[in-house]
Amino acid sequence: MALDGRLGPGATVGILGGGQLGRMLAVGASRLGIKTVVMAPGSDNPAFDVAGDRIEAAWDDETALRKLVGLCDVVTYEFENVPLTTARLIEQSCPVRPSADVLAITQDRLAEKRFLAGIGVATAPFASIESEADVAAALATVGLPAIIKTRRLGYDGKGQRRIDAEDAGVQAWRELGGRPAIAEGVVAFSGEISVLCARAHGSGEIRSFDVPVNVHENHILRASSVPSGFAAGIEDKAREIAAAIAESLSYEGLLAVEMFVSEDREQPIIVNELAPRVHNSGHWTVDACMVSQFEQHIRAICGWPLGDTTRLADVQMTNLLGAESDEWVRWADETGVAVHIYGKKECRPGRKMGHLTRLRQVSTRR
Amino acid sequence: MALDGRLGPGATVGILGGGQLGRMLAVGASRLGIKTVVMAPGSDNPAFDVAGDRIEAAWDDETALRKLVGLCDVVTYEFENVPLTTARLIEQSCPVRPSADVLAITQDRLAEKRFLAGIGVATAPFASIESEADVAAALATVGLPAIIKTRRLGYDGKGQRRIDAEDAGVQAWRELGGRPAIAEGVVAFSGEISVLCARAHGSGEIRSFDVPVNVHENHILRASSVPSGFAAGIEDKAREIAAAIAESLSYEGLLAVEMFVSEDREQPIIVNELAPRVHNSGHWTVDACMVSQFEQHIRAICGWPLGDTTRLADVQMTNLLGAESDEWVRWADETGVAVHIYGKKECRPGRKMGHLTRLRQVSTRR
Repeated sequence: MALDGRLGPGATVGILGGGQLGRMLAVGASRLGIKTVVMAPGSDNPAFDVAGDRIEAAWDDETALRKLVGLCDVVTYEFENVPLTTARLIEQSCPVRPSADVLAITQDRLAEKRFLAGIGVATAPFASIESEADVAAALATVGLPAIIKTRRLGYDGKGQRRIDAEDAGVQAWRELGGRPAIAEGVVAFSGEISVLCARAHGSGEIRSFDVPVNVHENHILRASSVPSGFAAGIEDKAREIAAAIAESLSYEGLLAVEMFVSEDREQPIIVNELAPRVHNSGHWTVDACMVSQFEQHIRAICGWPLGDTTRLADVQMTNLLGAESDEWVRWADETGVAVHIYGKKECRPGRKMGHLTRLRQVSTRR
Repeated sequence: MALDGRLGPGATVGILGGGQLGRMLAVGASRLGIKTVVMAPGSDNPAFDVAGDRIEAAWDDETALRKLVGLCDVVTYEFENVPLTTARLIEQSCPVRPSADVLAITQDRLAEKRFLAGIGVATAPFASIESEADVAAALATVGLPAIIKTRRLGYDGKGQRRIDAEDAGVQAWRELGGRPAIAEGVVAFSGEISVLCARAHGSGEIRSFDVPVNVHENHILRASSVPSGFAAGIEDKAREIAAAIAESLSYEGLLAVEMFVSEDREQPIIVNELAPRVHNSGHWTVDACMVSQFEQHIRAICGWPLGDTTRLADVQMTNLLGAESDEWVRWADETGVAVHIYGKKECRPGRKMGHLTRLRQVSTRR
C-alpha cells in the first residue's frame, strides 16, 4: 500500500466534513482505487452517500476521532473551519494533509495576511482590531471604504461589514460580536480570479489548473469561467504567486488562492484569500479536465505524481442556489451541459444545491 | 421525487452486481443527486465503496431482495447474467430497467440471434445445437471455420470453442458440457466496433456516443479508441442499427452493441453481440464526454432527458489486466492520461483491475 511514502490503491483517506466538496473528493479518490471515510456532525451529509465508511460525530468526539484514525492512512478536510484542536489531535497518530499548521494560518485572517505580507505577496491594506480602541486607527491605516471582518469563521460574506464613513466603524465592529477582527481596505479591481494549485506530499511537485474568472452575487460565488479573458501574462503571474504560497507553506494537497486583478500596472494582482482545500471555483475541472481538482487533491495528499491539468474545453460553471436545483429537468435537457446535484436533504435560499458546467467550446489549446 | 414518471434527485437506484461497472454507475448516479444501493454476493465488491447502501447476499436470497426493493425506486444491473428468476421477482414490486424480458433475450445467444434476424439485422450465420445429433448439421449450416458457444453464461471467451475441422465438432461440444449451444460461422472482418446507445424511460429518446474501435487479446478487450478510423457512413449506419435494436426491445437504459465491420460492401456491418448494460468499450466517455455512459444509463432508467454525448477529445482506453495495475505510479505520471483503479481486493492474471484513458488530441469536432 505504502510505496516510497506513497499511499496507493487500497489505502484509506479520511475526510473531515460531509458536504459537496467531501462528496466530490470521495468520488475523486474512487477513481484511484482509494477508499474514503467521511466524518461529519449532523445527518444532512451528502458525502456519506459515496463514502466507504461514515462517522456521524461532533468534531470534539474523541471516541469517533480514534475510530477515524484507526481506519485511515491519511486525513484531510473539505473545509477550513475544522477546529484546530481536532486537527492537532488527529496529527498525533495519523498524518493530516494539509497540516494543522496550515489550518492555523488560514483560519485566522490576520495570521494569513501577515504570512502573505511576510513572503512578499501583495494584499489589500490591513490592520488588526483587538478592541474598540483600535477601530479608528485601523480604519485610518487602511483608508475608506473599508471592510471589517472577524478574524475567524467567516465565509460567503458572513462575519463582515462594509464601512463607508469613519464613524460607522465602532458600531459595525460591535455588530460583529466585538471579536478580534481586521480592517481591510477595499481594492479597486477589474475582476476576480482564482488559482487551484496542488503541491504533492513527498516530491513537492507543484501543478496548477487554468485560471478561472469568478463572479459573485451577494457574496456567494455565482459563476466561474475558463479561459478567464485576462492576458496570459496575468494568468502566469497568478499561478506563480500561488506556487510560491504553496511552497512557503510546505503545503500538501490542493490550495485555492483567490485574487483580484487590478488595473494598477505596478501591482496587477492582489491576493484576497486562501482556502486550504478544493474550491467551488474549480468544479469545472471535473467535466473539462482529464484529472479534476478533487482527484488532484487526493493524488497530492497520497504522494502520487500529480495529474495532467490539460483543459479539454472552454467552460463556464454556474452554481445552482436554493430552489434553482428544482429545475433539474430543464438543466438536464440543455445541450452541452453537465448537471451536478449534491443530494442535500434540505433546500434553503442561497444554499449551494448543485452546479452546471456549460460547454463554451471544445478547446484547441493544449 | 417522481415527476411525470421521472425519478429525480433524492431517488434511489438499486444496482445488481458489485464490480467496476456497478462502481462507476454509482458514481454516475451521485452526479445527479441520486442514491444507490448495491446488491452482490461475496465480499470483493468494489462498488460497495461508493454505494449509499450495500447488501451482500446471494441472488436467490428473497429476504435480501425484499430489503433491496424496499429501499429502491428502480433496479438495474451491471451484468447480464443476473438470474432471470431474480429479475422477475424484483419486477413484481419494483421496476427493473432494462426489463427482465430484455434479459431473457440477451442471456440466451440463440434467442438473441433469432431476435436480431427477426428485425432484419445482419449477424454471423448461426444454428442451434440441442444434442450431439445436431452438431454436424449445425456446422454444415454455418460453414467452417465456426465457433460453438454455449447459449448461456459465456463471457470474455469462456464457454466457446473454435472449430476448424468438421470432425472436431462433437468433441468440442462435449467439452462445453454438452449443454444447449449455437454454432456460429466465423466472419471475416476488418475491425470490431461497438455502439453505446441509450434509450430513455418515458420519452423513448435515443442517443448514442461516438463509435469506438475495439481490439481484443485472448478474447479480453484490450483497448478502445475514438474516433474509430472507419468512414462516417459506417459509423452512422452502426448507430442506426443500435437505435433500431433499442427501439425494438423497448429498451430502457444504455445498450452496448458489438459489431464487426467487414469489407463486404453489401453487408458492411454484422452484429456480434448485445450487452444490456454499460460496457467496457465505453469507459473513455468518463474522461472525454460531458456525460459518461454511466450517467447516461442512470438518466435513461430514471426518465431524465438524455445527456449530451459530445466528445471533447480523441482518446484511447486501455484495460489494466492483472498485475499491470501494480504499475500505477508509472501510469499516473504519464502526460495526458487518466488512471482508473477499481479497488479490487484480489489480483488475478487477466482480471480487469483498472484502465487508462489516454488523450490522443483535443477534439475540434462537435
